[in-house]
Amino acid sequence: MSSIVAVGSIAFDSIEAPTGQAEEILGGSLTYFALAASHFSRVRLVGVVGADFNDEHMRVFGSDSIDTSSLERAEGETFRWRGRYLDDMNQRETLSLALNVFESFDPKVPKDVDANDFLFLANGSPKLQLQTLEQMPDNAFCLLDTMDFWIENDRADLQQVLERVDGLVINDEEAKFLSGETNLITAGNKILDMGPKIVIVKKGEHGAFLFSTYLHYALPAYPIEHVNDPTGAGDTFAGGVMGYLARGGRVTIGRIKRAMIYGTVMASFCVEKFGPDRLLEIDSTDIRDRYDDFVQFTTP
Amino acid sequence: MSSIVAVGSIAFDSIEAPTGQAEEILGGSLTYFALAASHFSRVRLVGVVGADFNDEHMRVFGSDSIDTSSLERAEGETFRWRGRYLDDMNQRETLSLALNVFESFDPKVPKDVDANDFLFLANGSPKLQLQTLEQMPDNAFCLLDTMDFWIENDRADLQQVLERVDGLVINDEEAKFLSGETNLITAGNKILDMGPKIVIVKKGEHGAFLFSTYLHYALPAYPIEHVNDPTGAGDTFAGGVMGYLARGGRVTIGRIKRAMIYGTVMASFCVEKFGPDRLLEIDSTDIRDRYDDFVQFTTP
Repeated sequence: MSSIVAVGSIAFDSIEAPTGQAEEILGGSLTYFALAASHFSRVRLVGVVGADFNDEHMRVFGSDSIDTSSLERAEGETFRWRGRYLDDMNQRETLSLALNVFESFDPKVPKDVDANDFLFLANGSPKLQLQTLEQMPDNAFCLLDTMDFWIENDRADLQQVLERVDGLVINDEEAKFLSGETNLITAGNKILDMGPKIVIVKKGEHGAFLFSTYLHYALPAYPIEHVNDPTGAGDTFAGGVMGYLARGGRVTIGRIKRAMIYGTVMASFCVEKFGPDRLLEIDSTDIRDRYDDFVQFTTP
Repeated sequence: MSSIVAVGSIAFDSIEAPTGQAEEILGGSLTYFALAASHFSRVRLVGVVGADFNDEHMRVFGSDSIDTSSLERAEGETFRWRGRYLDDMNQRETLSLALNVFESFDPKVPKDVDANDFLFLANGSPKLQLQTLEQMPDNAFCLLDTMDFWIENDRADLQQVLERVDGLVINDEEAKFLSGETNLITAGNKILDMGPKIVIVKKGEHGAFLFSTYLHYALPAYPIEHVNDPTGAGDTFAGGVMGYLARGGRVTIGRIKRAMIYGTVMASFCVEKFGPDRLLEIDSTDIRDRYDDFVQFTTP
């Protein structure tokens, strides 16, 4: 079975929302991605935590499917983020951010990866993403995430990354920003020309959209009445997508479509509780049930 | 075969958009609804036009499937609307509005309707909608449209209408406003409690959502790269829905789902050109092709 090498951030998040608040709970792209993907496949974490990251925190990654042997522990404090969600929960603002040990993060891919393994590059500096790709050039499938900050401040390196990955996952506003287009369909097609074979656009409560050369696919989000905390939903979505793809080892358009449903299902669990708590409660039956519900919900 | 009795407005629209502009082109809810629905079923127009509505305008309703014998011609001018779309085309503002002959519109349902016939009540005063319902109490299926103005200014009558119709079609902002809820799923369920057996929420470029007692259904919009004029897309959607339902005569959840795809397909044509022009060009093959594309586009 293929493994997924996942490179990203581990953070302590403080969250204010109309639905409640939380102080210094475990977060970061790598955390959400791994907790989702590990329901399907083995995930090897490439990240860095500080001296304040204790054994109790580490127990969150206690699943047999999560390999923490490449998780680096550095002097200093773990990455911290504080944000606030506005009334409609679709908008948020960052109140403070301290990169701490993540600032000098130097990703080291395990030596024993092979060409069957998958690679997820979570949102981060395109320079680091390039360094990671150079350590694992023969991956089976590489999915990239990025954000407006890098599009604005390091487009040249980002362009190089885009030429070397198989897929990009990005939200709708960022897709428009990256392409310079206002129509999402035009934007997605233009990004395909930048290199990736597939582009998955995340639209939050409005679902997701797949662009590939000869095929487009769209799906709505799973309907959730009580969204408590949207933090990490995008990385959780990516975790479901990559987890499902890596479990089968093969990547086909049909499997990518189903992977997007699993991504949607995992994200729908994620938002139900603060932090990644809900991802730790669910089992394969919960996931399968919601997958079946989703298919029912979208089949004419 | 069932007919659809459709009650609504006929207008001359003047439109300013980033994609171009148009002066005094044929519009109004009844126009868009009829031009979409008539591709599937016979539609009987109940509306009013002014003395300035000439034979050339009338030729737009020249399809054998459109019955204009209940279309009233009154002294005075036809309803006029002028609006402007902002850069993202999802937002528009009304620049001017003159109800003219529509102000004293007194809908008269044809005498020879029967219990197999369908009824569409386009957006309009709940008092007029109640008057119409009283003329056709034994319809096979009645679909209602409304807007924020009536929710705000005549909620009592609107509540009575909601208790007497089978379905409501409404946009997402209006659904939230009508229910007083910020979550769309909660909003849809709450509106079901107000009377309709089904609630269809239109989300524009994000698709549509069906609420019914034991079943929810969601579908994305058909992907359109060049949206030239969104005017009438909502009524066109309703026309596709009702046209398909009336063609079969039977209303089941399975048929409502397929009807929503036809509604989506018809709306996707509508926005491609200014006014209802595109709806007049297409034929059943165009519609079927795009239906098949849509199924492909949304099937995992």
